[in-house]
Amino acid sequence: MDKLREAGAAVGEWVDTSLLKSPARLALGSFAIVILLFTGLLSLPIATETGERAPFIDALFTATSAVCVTGLVTVDTGLYWSGWGLGIIALGIKVGGLGIMTLASLVGLAVSRRLGLTQRLLAAGEARAAGLGDLRSLLRTVVVVSFSVEIAIALVLFPRFLTLDYGFWRSLGYSGFYGISAFNNAGFTPDPLGLIPYAGDFWMLVPIGLGVLVGALGYPVYLNLIRGWRRPRDWSLHTKLTLIMVSALTVVSAGLLAVFEWSNPDTLGDHSSAKSIGNIFFQSINQRSGGFNSFDIGKAREQTWLLEDVLMFIGGGSGSTAGGIRVTTLAVLLLAIWAEARGRRDMEAFGKRIGTEVLRGAVAITLIGLFIVIIGTTVFMAQTDIPLDQALYEVVSAYATCGLSTGITADLPPEAKGTLIAMMYLGRVGSLTIAAALALNKQRRVIRYPSERPIIG
Amino acid sequence: MDKLREAGAAVGEWVDTSLLKSPARLALGSFAIVILLFTGLLSLPIATETGERAPFIDALFTATSAVCVTGLVTVDTGLYWSGWGLGIIALGIKVGGLGIMTLASLVGLAVSRRLGLTQRLLAAGEARAAGLGDLRSLLRTVVVVSFSVEIAIALVLFPRFLTLDYGFWRSLGYSGFYGISAFNNAGFTPDPLGLIPYAGDFWMLVPIGLGVLVGALGYPVYLNLIRGWRRPRDWSLHTKLTLIMVSALTVVSAGLLAVFEWSNPDTLGDHSSAKSIGNIFFQSINQRSGGFNSFDIGKAREQTWLLEDVLMFIGGGSGSTAGGIRVTTLAVLLLAIWAEARGRRDMEAFGKRIGTEVLRGAVAITLIGLFIVIIGTTVFMAQTDIPLDQALYEVVSAYATCGLSTGITADLPPEAKGTLIAMMYLGRVGSLTIAAALALNKQRRVIRYPSERPIIG
Ligand SMILES: [K+]
Ligand SMILES: [K+]
Repeated sequence: MDKLREAGAAVGEWVDTSLLKSPARLALGSFAIVILLFTGLLSLPIATETGERAPFIDALFTATSAVCVTGLVTVDTGLYWSGWGLGIIALGIKVGGLGIMTLASLVGLAVSRRLGLTQRLLAAGEARAAGLGDLRSLLRTVVVVSFSVEIAIALVLFPRFLTLDYGFWRSLGYSGFYGISAFNNAGFTPDPLGLIPYAGDFWMLVPIGLGVLVGALGYPVYLNLIRGWRRPRDWSLHTKLTLIMVSALTVVSAGLLAVFEWSNPDTLGDHSSAKSIGNIFFQSINQRSGGFNSFDIGKAREQTWLLEDVLMFIGGGSGSTAGGIRVTTLAVLLLAIWAEARGRRDMEAFGKRIGTEVLRGAVAITLIGLFIVIIGTTVFMAQTDIPLDQALYEVVSAYATCGLSTGITADLPPEAKGTLIAMMYLGRVGSLTIAAALALNKQRRVIRYPSERPIIG
Repeated sequence: MDKLREAGAAVGEWVDTSLLKSPARLALGSFAIVILLFTGLLSLPIATETGERAPFIDALFTATSAVCVTGLVTVDTGLYWSGWGLGIIALGIKVGGLGIMTLASLVGLAVSRRLGLTQRLLAAGEARAAGLGDLRSLLRTVVVVSFSVEIAIALVLFPRFLTLDYGFWRSLGYSGFYGISAFNNAGFTPDPLGLIPYAGDFWMLVPIGLGVLVGALGYPVYLNLIRGWRRPRDWSLHTKLTLIMVSALTVVSAGLLAVFEWSNPDTLGDHSSAKSIGNIFFQSINQRSGGFNSFDIGKAREQTWLLEDVLMFIGGGSGSTAGGIRVTTLAVLLLAIWAEARGRRDMEAFGKRIGTEVLRGAVAITLIGLFIVIIGTTVFMAQTDIPLDQALYEVVSAYATCGLSTGITADLPPEAKGTLIAMMYLGRVGSLTIAAALALNKQRRVIRYPSERPIIG
């Protein structure tokens, strides 16, 4: 018992020192190590269907894609990897998904502790100091929610696979794989053709779509909803902004997808109206970060690609396995414009004021993200002959860990695969470490310079 | 004398009421009227080389392009329009250029008057109330600087055209046209092939390049430099930020252009080193808003197009004839990131503090600009079969009133020409009216909501 307490104290001290000092280093380091570990596992001959050792670049690409829960692939997941390989990939997704949520929880805890916020991550109204108890509670929530949703998806899909005559073991494996892949917004499919053959199969699409939707909300929203789902008025500002943005983006993007693809014979043109609407909403949910697709993205219209570039870049909820700059980051930028348009001193939403430092953080995350995507696209185009439309799509998909693709990743030269690997890694640890580093780095200075207003615009 | 004073008072009252109330309406209305007027002039049979009436869409496109000092064309300027037509275009550029600088001056005056700033637009250190004297002084500066630079360029180019055996009157007309087109960052050329035949002719490129560079700085910088060029330390924050950003962007983009185009046989590959370096800097200066080009943009690499998309979007200086979101807008965003990275409470530069409302304005201008460009590109792609790379290039070029083109504007369907016309108009009056509307719309509220921090990134 004493030993346990000692261990607890050691962890507490570690959170205080190492993590507070450099959450960026922790995130960068731990993801690099886990990716290399899974690269090793996928390099085992037993991992491939043929029993031959996978080329290093493909093992590294697949491991990065799995651990960063992206879903981009250079080989056909269902055909190339053996059952063991699929298991390794599912494990990589699970470890990566839990890892990113745990890291986000730790960082969130460190930030709230450092800032001494009275408004806490855990629950509206509670105002005690963050401690080990909070950490344990956070991690428990993360683990319980993720396993529950994954198992729920699997339980719904299992009988479906049985009815499709996949056999007991394959049905079990597939439903587990889809459960993990959906909740963690990974977008990997064990089926060779992905979900396109299931475009009319709502028994498949609905549980997977719901899993992706829930997975993209993030642990702060789970905590809030679990503890106070009966009192929406008391939800935290974060929860309200996340839910509103996710709903708005889903509806708006569904509308635009309908305009662009309804009559495209290569995607939705031949579907019945019900099937089209179902697929539009499935795609709309998956565009932000899920990465599953029920029609061929490569045959979609150019306008759809550009729309999806924007939606992927925005991404999902903070503290979730979804990527992008996160919906709350966009919300803060929009609230700043709204406040400015109304001539208000403060950014306000739901009777709360949002501090300037949050806006500056949002500007940093957005601008750095744009910068990385533009650099990545430039390098990618120099390495290949791929035009801007497809290059931008793949790079944004990698950076936002979305995993949708116009279908060019398999034929890329190794150095272009390397660019996408770098994008996935930066995208996964990037926004989190930028946000943490900025939030933790606060000085109070007494000296203020005189104000001067440059002319803008 | 009494009548004059009465007229002066009337103007002062008009500035106080109409302009302060709605600078946006003034800008939108006056530009629309002037564009329609020049569309009428260019529709005269005398305006074309053949003596036939120009199609309405081409007259409207050219008039918009001239008045918005953009430089995009749907017909070959030198071949299609008669001497009269070229004169109308030059007049349109001159009216548009003076108009935008005058409007910017009026808005700047209204803003500084409304805000009661102690730090004034006119000169560092002076702190008297803005009045008619200021307005007259501002307008005088705008007129004097623009005519001086235009005439200086024309005086340098005139003997060059004579040595090329263009004859006296054509040399006179061409040198005047280039003078107006360069200072006003219009990018129109009376030469059928533009400046590409002059790629090795530094007697042409240097005065035009310098004219574009000076024209893109903006009247607040002229005022500052004219009154206090000996004391750089006393320059306003706006002047310092503008000069630093313009210099940095020119050098960085020149370096990147060299990397992308040095060995491209279709652009710079066959040039001598000196000629390549000259053309790189000419292009680097013109990329932001000048719109002249000394090599064929259509044959440049994809990476160059993407780089130029970014540079065009950034644009030139506030209160200049250059377009884009403006270099100071980007500077404010970067300073916000810098302040956040250093953990400072305030955005600071050169011993001055920049208020939060300026950051919010910068976020608004940038995000609204991005939004309009993405919408415009989507519409443009739906109207044509042009892929993203070229569609984005033309739309950004129109919105940022840059005027560079990959060479597709002549063959566009009328509705796509309409999209570019809308982009040029919005780009020209857009940033200015957004900035003015936001700056003028200030309320002081006593109530402040409690602070709550959403999680971002
Ligand atoms: K994904
Ligand atoms: K221009």
